[in-house]
This record gives sequence, C-alpha cells and structure tokens, in this order.
Amino acid sequence: MNRSINIALLGIGTIGTGVARIFFENSHRFANRSDCVPRITRIVDKDASDRGVAIPEGVISDDLEGALSDPEIDIVVELFGGTGIAREATLKAIANGKHVVTANKALISAHGDEIFAAAHAQGVDVLFEASVGGSIPILRALRESLFTSRIDSLFGIVNGTTNYILTRMAEEGAPYAELLKSAQELGFAEADPSADVKGWDSQQKLGILLRLAFGAAVDAKEILCEGIEDISPVDIAYAAEFGYSIKLLATAKRHGDQIEARVHPAMIPASSVMAGVKHEYNAVEVVGEDFGTQIFYGKGAGQTPTATVVASDVLDIAQRIASGAQCCRVGALLPRADAPSLIPSDDLTMRHYLRLEVEDRAGVLEVISRALAVERISIESVMQKGRAERKTVPLIIMTHEASEAAIRRAIERFGNIEPVTGKVQHIRVEELS
Amino acid sequence: MNRSINIALLGIGTIGTGVARIFFENSHRFANRSDCVPRITRIVDKDASDRGVAIPEGVISDDLEGALSDPEIDIVVELFGGTGIAREATLKAIANGKHVVTANKALISAHGDEIFAAAHAQGVDVLFEASVGGSIPILRALRESLFTSRIDSLFGIVNGTTNYILTRMAEEGAPYAELLKSAQELGFAEADPSADVKGWDSQQKLGILLRLAFGAAVDAKEILCEGIEDISPVDIAYAAEFGYSIKLLATAKRHGDQIEARVHPAMIPASSVMAGVKHEYNAVEVVGEDFGTQIFYGKGAGQTPTATVVASDVLDIAQRIASGAQCCRVGALLPRADAPSLIPSDDLTMRHYLRLEVEDRAGVLEVISRALAVERISIESVMQKGRAERKTVPLIIMTHEASEAAIRRAIERFGNIEPVTGKVQHIRVEELS
Repeated sequence: MNRSINIALLGIGTIGTGVARIFFENSHRFANRSDCVPRITRIVDKDASDRGVAIPEGVISDDLEGALSDPEIDIVVELFGGTGIAREATLKAIANGKHVVTANKALISAHGDEIFAAAHAQGVDVLFEASVGGSIPILRALRESLFTSRIDSLFGIVNGTTNYILTRMAEEGAPYAELLKSAQELGFAEADPSADVKGWDSQQKLGILLRLAFGAAVDAKEILCEGIEDISPVDIAYAAEFGYSIKLLATAKRHGDQIEARVHPAMIPASSVMAGVKHEYNAVEVVGEDFGTQIFYGKGAGQTPTATVVASDVLDIAQRIASGAQCCRVGALLPRADAPSLIPSDDLTMRHYLRLEVEDRAGVLEVISRALAVERISIESVMQKGRAERKTVPLIIMTHEASEAAIRRAIERFGNIEPVTGKVQHIRVEELS
Repeated sequence: MNRSINIALLGIGTIGTGVARIFFENSHRFANRSDCVPRITRIVDKDASDRGVAIPEGVISDDLEGALSDPEIDIVVELFGGTGIAREATLKAIANGKHVVTANKALISAHGDEIFAAAHAQGVDVLFEASVGGSIPILRALRESLFTSRIDSLFGIVNGTTNYILTRMAEEGAPYAELLKSAQELGFAEADPSADVKGWDSQQKLGILLRLAFGAAVDAKEILCEGIEDISPVDIAYAAEFGYSIKLLATAKRHGDQIEARVHPAMIPASSVMAGVKHEYNAVEVVGEDFGTQIFYGKGAGQTPTATVVASDVLDIAQRIASGAQCCRVGALLPRADAPSLIPSDDLTMRHYLRLEVEDRAGVLEVISRALAVERISIESVMQKGRAERKTVPLIIMTHEASEAAIRRAIERFGNIEPVTGKVQHIRVEELS
C-alpha cells in the first residue's frame, strides 16, 4: 500500500524542530523499515523563521484552522504545550477524524478523559509517549508488553531538572539555591522552575502512569506532592549514613482496589539501580506479579530524545493506517467501572526521616519521644550528631511505618516543644521493591 | 469485531505452562484492555499430564500435524526449543498462513533469514520478544520506539546464569566451580551449563539484537565469544581496584558500514548503571544518536517473566488480526542491501587487562614490556601485588587500545618468557558510553 500519509505539526519550538528534522532530513533511516514514510505537509506556528531544518517553503503558516480541517491531514502532532489552545486544537483535530500525537503531559493529565472519550467516539488514536520520561518508551511498555501481568507498584524518577540538582547536591555538597541557579544557566532548569522543583511536573506524569499501569483515572492534583526546595546537602549526607540516596520519586502502589500515589523527595536504598539514576536521566521501575521488577532508563527531556519518541508515535499510527488497520486504541484508556480509587493522602503510611535542631541538653529525647508516642509513631533509630560548639545539635530520627496524618501532627507537636528550634525536616523513606 | 482468535501452543514445559496459565486463568486481566481475547485451542505435547493449570480436556494432544494444518488456528506459539522440530514446525505453520510467536533464540539466531523470508512471502508475522532478555521488552523498543534514530552501540547483560555467578563471586569471593554448583542446585544453571557459561547463549542473543538494532544479518557463530569459566575472584578484586566490575557483556558498535560485535567477560565502570545489574537480572543499554543512552532492565528468564512477554506478543498479533490490519512486519527484518558487515574478530581493538604470574626478581617487567612493545601494545598502568612468601607474584597490566590479534600474539610471547609462569589471564575493558 502506498498511499501517502500527511502530518500537521502544531508548534515548531524545540521539540517541533527536532521532529521536523527527523521527517525532513532523516527519514532515510527508517524508510527501509517502514511500509510508509509519512510527510509533514503543514506546520502551524506564528513564527515562520528559519529553524536550521530543510523545511520546504510554504509549509509553515499560522493557519491552525486550515491545518485542522485539511482533509489531506491524517495525523496532528500537538506541540503547542499548555492546556488552552492545545486542548481546543486536539479536540478539533479529533472531531475532524485526525489521529493525534502529543508530548503534552499537562494536557493528557488534566483532560485525558475528555480527549480519550472524544477519540474513542471518532475511532481515532491518541499517542503521548513523550509526555512521560522523554525518550523512554515506558508508556508503550505498559500498553503493549506488561499488561498481561498484574502491576503491583511503580516508582519513577521522571523529572530531569530535580534529579540534576539532587545529583550535584550529593556530589558537591552545594546548597539548593546555588545549584538551581547553575541548572538555569546550563539550560537544565526553566527561568520559572516551579513546575519542576515543586514536583508538579512529576505529579502530572504520575497521573498519566496511573492510568496506563492501573487503569486509574484520577485527578493528578489530588496526588500527594512535595518538591525538593527544602532538601539540603546535610540531609543527603545523613541519608548516606543510613544507606540511602535522596531522589524526587513518583510512587504508586496497588492495595486491593485502591491505589497509593505520591510525589516527594524519598530516601531510597543507595545500592538500588534507581539510586544510580543520575543528573538529567529519568527512570521508571515497574513491579508486576508475573515479570518481577523492570526498569526503563533514559533521557527524560531534550530536543532530539523527545523528538525521537514523538516520531515513533507518528510512525506507529502511520503504519497502522498503511496496513489498513482500525487505529483507535484509546478504548483501554477510558475510565473503567473497576478502576481503583486513590487512597487519601492522610492515610498513606511509610517510614519517615525527621531532622530536628534541638538544644543540647538532657531530657530532650524524652520529650520528643513522647510527642511521637502520643501519635503512636514508633522510632526505629535515633542519631544525635556532634556535641555543639553551637547551642543546638541536629537530632535525626528514623521512624517505623506511620501515616502522613500522624507524622504531620507529630511535627506540629514539635513546634510547641521548647528544646526544638527552627523547622523540622521531614523526608519519606521508600525501600522500593 | 468479535471473531475469535485461536492459538496453538507447541510444547508445554516451563514457559508453556506459564503461557497457558495467562490465557486459561488470567485473561480477565487484559480482557478489558484488549479488543479480543484469543483462546488456546490446541496444545501439542507428548505429555498430557496435569500442569496445575485449568486446561480443558482434550486441548493437549501430540497431534502436531493437526495443529499446524487446523484452519481455525491463527497463531502458533513455538515453545519446543532447539532448531530441529522447532524449525520444521515454524516453517510449516508459516506455509499454512499462521502467525508465529516464539521464545526460541537458537532458532531465530540460526534460521532467522529463512523464517523471515518465508513469513514475508506468506504475509504472516513472526514475533520473538522472549528470545532476548526474557521479560524485558527490548526487541519491541528497538522495533517500535528507537528506530527513528541511528543506533551507535549496544551493551547487553543477557545471560542470567553467568550474571548470577559473577555477582556472587564479587560479593562472596567464592571460586567459579563452587558457585556454578550452587547455581545448579538453586535452579539458576542447567545440569549442562555450557551454553550459558561459555557465552553461546549470549552470542545467539547478540546475533538477534544485531538484526534489530543495526539491520545486520550475521552468522552469530562468527561473533567473538568467550565465557566466564576462567574468571576468578582475584580478577574481580583487581578490577575493583581499577574502578571496574566484571560482567559477561554482549557488545555491538557501529563503525560506518561495519559492526563490531563480541561476547566476553568485560571490565565495565563500577559506577555505571550496568554494573548495578546483579544476580539473575538482565539489562540492555542502547546508545543512539538522537536519544542518547537508554537502559532496559528486568528478569532475563523464569516461567512467569518469560510467559508474560510471549503472551504480549500473542496479544499484539491478535489485536492486529482483530483490527483488520495486515499483520506482517517481518519486512524490516529481511537482509538489506546496505546491511553492515561484521568486523573480523582479529581487528577489534579495545583496552585489555592482563594478569601474569611472574617470578619475583629484577628485570621481569623489562622483558614483559618488550614483548608488548614488539606487538605495538602500549601500557597504561602496571601493578605488582605483594612481595611473595611465594616464589611468584601477580603482575597486573592495563594496556591502551590494542587489537585482538596483537594481544593474542603478546600472550603467546609471554609463554616463551621464562619468568612468566602459568596461564596468562586476559580480560577486555569496556568503558560503555
């Protein structure tokens, strides 16, 4: 079959330029592996200036409406980003019978239900591999390889900016603010880094992973989320003494028909493969009843890594069109009657690391222990560091399993205990599988 | 579309029992994610005894011919193993218009060209994910996600038995023979462990990876291959002093239109993610121009992990049948005119670790250096361990890049140097990416 398959690219920024390069300059790489080589015939962008890619004249225009209604277009690649015009364009493309490929985690996370329902009704496909883990084909693995097993848990390092900062903090002992500035200068962090450092980016990605791994359709905003802004080199050093590394971890676990989900800095075993995920790399660990532990590791961002998977999504759909298949595979993504629900954050239990700054005098441990005992939190170990030239010393507590609610109340209690000065540092512990 | 899709399972040993359990007992897991739930209607095995799986009466029989010619059968799952009857049955299934799923690395490695050509002619598909890396969906990733980029190199720990032995050797310092015996008792090694410990299993798997990653169709037997039988705890200890771990590594690198391929114990950086792949786990690292480094990690063998990917191959084909698609995707696997050829083993260059047992006297290093210099091998570092109560001491040499041929000739020269006693230990060094 040799019918040509045509693509409209919405937005030609960093990723879009990478995608354009693959199709305009490097399609010989896959031409002999593929039944069809789709062509980008329309690029919608207000800025038609040169991107250093051999894009034929007239392909770039600002005619969004024309691209979405062009009967020659088979696949729309949404790279506008955000949830405004991206959502409108995606829904209009679907309504017009176009398949959609997107790298937009915010869009899929916030409007997945609406988009998948529309695509299902129209019989078109929506692929979004690049929305989680950049170049890592984790969504494909979940959709196509691991779904015959029950999946029990999933752990993701899915934000490159924060992993870069935490890695350098571990290696250099430099403070957060300095590392953030350096990451910004090197292009690893945005001018406004909030979405990354506050964990929101990981939260959206975990929302998408929950759908693929567990069939859960949850509001990602309800997932417990804490960023890395308060992590300091001293915590990384103490973590190492306990045999842990600190990573911003997106965690999901199945408990019967409920799902535990959370995003926060976590102490994970320093000897684990996940602890070896450094700098801007991402990784997702999936644990299934049948297959055990699988880890997928690669670059979580960047022009060419991300463009690679956008292109492979496009080629996947193109090959289905060329093979005469019914393409729509969003049926598996629709909300299911037996979908697991999210466990409320307060009820999540795990082990906790607490670092308190306390006055160096007798009886301090007793009052602190009492505050924990009142909340029925039992202590696994306590470590008091140094005897001070300073008036206060750090006291490190590792607890046994305790609920979020209990640990929060205990920390509130510490605020009223006189020998405890300053803010209590709190980091959750995750043993992985 | 609700037409039923029927499977014939050839062989119900360990993996087959796992596959049968998925389809007879656990199909509810994927029924709501899949357009069709195929059924196993025939199992061919001489032994019809109970496998502890709810297989309906009459499904197991020894009627191979009947299964292969049954017009109701859509997909044949070949789990006989080996290259005799497995090859015949596979070719006959294809000739009869059946799609084939197999976990048989020996078959695909030795007879891939013949099988893919036959399947292409018949318009049927052949999937073989379980043949490399057990549960790890590495072939799917290469076929469907990474193929838009040029792939530059690939490193695999693809044999669980040898990785288990090497991991325990590193952790316990126990000798090879003792660990092999223990691995056999624990079921991690076969009674005849040759295929694993001599590297042949990894060699076959690398042959398959070469086809998927580089489009190369090579005779796997021509790949440089060395096993782990001569590795001793002392080498692992010395490797650690240089910052390396020892793994049985399957390596492939693109050099223009030629491919370097080899299987041997390799010293790899101890800080690398690959060095963290322990015990029976497998991993494959793929380095591509566009996506950088990706690593796929998981269980390389075992009943349920392997059955999971066999089942996902079956469901992949079943969904294509159900969607009305032309299924055959073997076109990309046929020998290509521009396929890269294998670089002869003798011409491969890398760094080398040499451990010699030498008499502890002046001038020894000079004669050894001269033997290396004659072969134009330059020394990166030399380490002489201990001064002996024994008459001889170990001398450790790390070379700069040198060819296989040169290092072999140098080792031969050592045999004629009087102060060198015993066998020279030789381990190649691989810095990964």
